[in-house]
Amino acid sequence: MTDEATAFVPGHVTGFFSAHPADEPVQAGSRGAGVTLSDGVEVTIHRTDAPTTQSVELDGEAVEMPPVGRVLDALGVDARVSAETSLPLGAGFGVSGAMALGTALAANRVFECGRSENELTALAHIAEVQSGTGLGDVVAQARGGVPIRLDPGAPGYGRLDGVPERPTVEYVTFGELSTEDVLSGDTEQLSAAGEDALARLVREPTLSQFMYASRRFAREAGLLTDEVTETIRAVSDAGGEASMAMLGRTVFALGTGLSDAGYDAASCRTHPAGATLR
Amino acid sequence: MTDEATAFVPGHVTGFFSAHPADEPVQAGSRGAGVTLSDGVEVTIHRTDAPTTQSVELDGEAVEMPPVGRVLDALGVDARVSAETSLPLGAGFGVSGAMALGTALAANRVFECGRSENELTALAHIAEVQSGTGLGDVVAQARGGVPIRLDPGAPGYGRLDGVPERPTVEYVTFGELSTEDVLSGDTEQLSAAGEDALARLVREPTLSQFMYASRRFAREAGLLTDEVTETIRAVSDAGGEASMAMLGRTVFALGTGLSDAGYDAASCRTHPAGATLR
Repeated sequence: MTDEATAFVPGHVTGFFSAHPADEPVQAGSRGAGVTLSDGVEVTIHRTDAPTTQSVELDGEAVEMPPVGRVLDALGVDARVSAETSLPLGAGFGVSGAMALGTALAANRVFECGRSENELTALAHIAEVQSGTGLGDVVAQARGGVPIRLDPGAPGYGRLDGVPERPTVEYVTFGELSTEDVLSGDTEQLSAAGEDALARLVREPTLSQFMYASRRFAREAGLLTDEVTETIRAVSDAGGEASMAMLGRTVFALGTGLSDAGYDAASCRTHPAGATLR
Repeated sequence: MTDEATAFVPGHVTGFFSAHPADEPVQAGSRGAGVTLSDGVEVTIHRTDAPTTQSVELDGEAVEMPPVGRVLDALGVDARVSAETSLPLGAGFGVSGAMALGTALAANRVFECGRSENELTALAHIAEVQSGTGLGDVVAQARGGVPIRLDPGAPGYGRLDGVPERPTVEYVTFGELSTEDVLSGDTEQLSAAGEDALARLVREPTLSQFMYASRRFAREAGLLTDEVTETIRAVSDAGGEASMAMLGRTVFALGTGLSDAGYDAASCRTHPAGATLR
């Protein structure tokens, strides 16, 4: 019996994806690949004495985070949720997925819900899908590394693989891009490009193939903005490899690609583990 | 292009298991559960200039480690392999599985073999099964945490789940127990007890259920030795939880269970990540 528990969930930048809606949210999701980051979200669940309205704080500010409430509802508990992150919001780092998954792990401990890791990952995945805030971050964040999502859906439905490397990653953000707006639009062209990129990476599961397939996807999916295009080109001109974070006006690069090109970029490492309790 | 690479693979203590032979080694293995340890094995692969006989060193001594040679053969490379560990050998910590998996990950980087994480895990799993040195350590060590092996076999065949906790683990070893001798004998009673233990843990995926199911398994499988029985009882008398490592004359306990009972035990943490390149 404990009054609070904290989980760390790595950030996740998707390089390419295809969207796979389904009637059952547990089976819905995306296929694709990305990198999980040692920069992530610390989520703490506090037991509350009286039955209260659930409250969610991020970096000390009250926030609307529908997936978090859905996770607590699915576990049948009320709690105060506080989270801390150095990652930008709404910029393609999977912060909402991290909040959902961290909530599931930490609430399971505080309230002794007795769920398994796959069950908690599935709860968080379903909450994201139902909220329209993400399709593949949660399963990637539960795994860590450089995850390849071979199938859509929660554990038990979606198989994962990974690129066996642990690069340093730099990133720079120019602003938000609404996941909900993109996913609620026509995703046919985007998904065709994502399937193509995945086939490439499965044939050759290396970092350089991941970056190449991601850049090609960003171009074909029609999501590039001018400043993103320009930044990717600048990194390439400086001899590095960069692409766009899906979905955000964010560029990520391997190694010191962005700082070599003169950008003031944040730097972190690929996260080796998935989400974990502290 | 690099001349050497190092991978860290966590130790793995199995609490209970059932053996599942199969004609195809990729489908053979065990079901069961265990804990991965922050104490593990560092495996370094060195490129050798001339075509040489493969050599394997552990803590500075030449060792016979058939799974390592099988992994190198499967990747079609020759290399010098050196490894370091603080774990006891032949005592149920999955050192041979760690050597096989670390070799696969590090050799893939040095020789740019272009395999995915699942492919490398499968290679190491097959090498262990063919060598008769283990059935389930490799897939658990690739995952980290407190892995539940729901199915036997390599990735793509065996599904995994986990207990969402990160306990401190203590251990003490009284000597070796040959995995090959146990696995080549009659495993029917052992496997029936293992299936029973797994069903319990799947119904209630908590640490205390894991420890309870493991103790019950150790008794029913008929593998307990006197000093192991006595130690488990001493930990229990001191208010702790302990069981026997499969397969070794080793007792592991949660938290400070062994030192509370007066034993001079090694202590580490559950490892959150699976095997990773350094």
